[in-house]
Amino acid sequence: MRIAGIRRDGGPVEVASLSPDGTTVTVLAGLEEFWAGAAGWLSREPAGETVPASAVAFVPPVLPGARVICVGLNYLRHVAEGSYAGEGVPPHPTLFARWTRSLTVGGAPVPVPSGEDGLDWEGEVVAYVGAPLADADPDEALAAVAGYSAFNDITSRRAQKLTSQWTLGKNGDNSGPLGPLVPAAEVGDLRDGLRVRTRVNGEVVQDGRTDEMVYTVGDTLALISRTFTLRPGDLLATGTPAGVGYARTPPWLLRPGDEVEVEVERLGSVRNPIVANDARLPAA
Amino acid sequence: MRIAGIRRDGGPVEVASLSPDGTTVTVLAGLEEFWAGAAGWLSREPAGETVPASAVAFVPPVLPGARVICVGLNYLRHVAEGSYAGEGVPPHPTLFARWTRSLTVGGAPVPVPSGEDGLDWEGEVVAYVGAPLADADPDEALAAVAGYSAFNDITSRRAQKLTSQWTLGKNGDNSGPLGPLVPAAEVGDLRDGLRVRTRVNGEVVQDGRTDEMVYTVGDTLALISRTFTLRPGDLLATGTPAGVGYARTPPWLLRPGDEVEVEVERLGSVRNPIVANDARLPAA
Repeated sequence: MRIAGIRRDGGPVEVASLSPDGTTVTVLAGLEEFWAGAAGWLSREPAGETVPASAVAFVPPVLPGARVICVGLNYLRHVAEGSYAGEGVPPHPTLFARWTRSLTVGGAPVPVPSGEDGLDWEGEVVAYVGAPLADADPDEALAAVAGYSAFNDITSRRAQKLTSQWTLGKNGDNSGPLGPLVPAAEVGDLRDGLRVRTRVNGEVVQDGRTDEMVYTVGDTLALISRTFTLRPGDLLATGTPAGVGYARTPPWLLRPGDEVEVEVERLGSVRNPIVANDARLPAA
Repeated sequence: MRIAGIRRDGGPVEVASLSPDGTTVTVLAGLEEFWAGAAGWLSREPAGETVPASAVAFVPPVLPGARVICVGLNYLRHVAEGSYAGEGVPPHPTLFARWTRSLTVGGAPVPVPSGEDGLDWEGEVVAYVGAPLADADPDEALAAVAGYSAFNDITSRRAQKLTSQWTLGKNGDNSGPLGPLVPAAEVGDLRDGLRVRTRVNGEVVQDGRTDEMVYTVGDTLALISRTFTLRPGDLLATGTPAGVGYARTPPWLLRPGDEVEVEVERLGSVRNPIVANDARLPAA
């Protein structure tokens, strides 16, 4: 089952299941209703209306108030290639924030913001929290994961490195494309080592496996839940493997006209065109 | 005019004006409707129903998908007292993120999370963005501010300092109490130097003025708008003056049973009790 957010005729966001060939979608529930019982919705056959995919707008199946918690420096070879290499592997997961406003879906154009030479790719896996978690242990936390998606944590490196905090450079317009949500029961365990590949204009630039992660999904969610209470619909982006653009010699960044794709085994792919900054400005 | 979010009988969030004595509220608009035209709503007399304050639940007048962008290290004497003192004043505003889930209102209990010795206070001013901003200049950005509130950026210091990124320690449950929104036209310019005081159990622990800020609201919003497009309802928390608890000798943190209050000239105050971690756990 592959789950997407949809809007019909500018109406509210609903959650729907994509047909195997992607030509139709079958509605499961409204967005709030879905996250109030995600495990149940994901374990039943969708029973709502089926409509052509061409008749709906696709959006992330994400609550506006969800937290998008991202782990940095979670793959050893990525730690070694980047600007934190001298500090070694951090003793805890390095957590930074995206707001849901930065999320989008495959196909959406991603603008290179003002003052950036380009954008950097970060292919990764996102986990969706399906149940409340407060002071959870890692097994309980992992069991609460409702599903996973391929994700591209597209980064404005100049803005990210302006100060000690990465927030600004991690929240560009449309900079967080999500692939369809695949139910956790169909994905199994990320510790099985799902292959994560990123391609730029068809050329493979990242090729890692999720069993290289330093901090597992269960460990990280458990840690977070000791400080704040996770809610259904919250997202955990699990970090990117080696091969990002800024760490290359010479650096390689995405420019308008490029296409970037993240493909994750069992989760499918998410592909987006890069456009110029003008795309986000009001028409003159 | 003092603006609050309200819910009647568990219904949707509405935006309302508080009467001078606080005993009644007059409804302006639904939350989405308010932020679609905040400047207009704030310049007219409220024309909706008036109901007793005791008959409504108060909530922040904040869209779930709003971004809560916080400036760290924005007062010279606060930079000098903290763990970044050795690095001097940062050459750009240090921006970190809260999710709206961490926001609350005066009176709400704030739990000390697991593993923290207590919570730290950070009295400050929040600005509300009232219009879209992309590649704005500082004057345009300042003119887009719809209003201001007193704010307490209550911090879990252990979680904040676990890694290089502050996110975790800045998002504890109920850790961001907001006072009522006061329209920008009634507040004037923060560069006038509004007095910001924080009290713990009645004792003044911070006493600063907003003209001590290194980066103004206009400058900071303009900078942000070069990377992502600000939307009506987004918030900018402008940083705290000197006097936080962890930097004292010995350190002084909020413990269950304490009461913390932030008072800002022209904006009023927000006061909250501190409770134990159990408050956020399901009843046994």
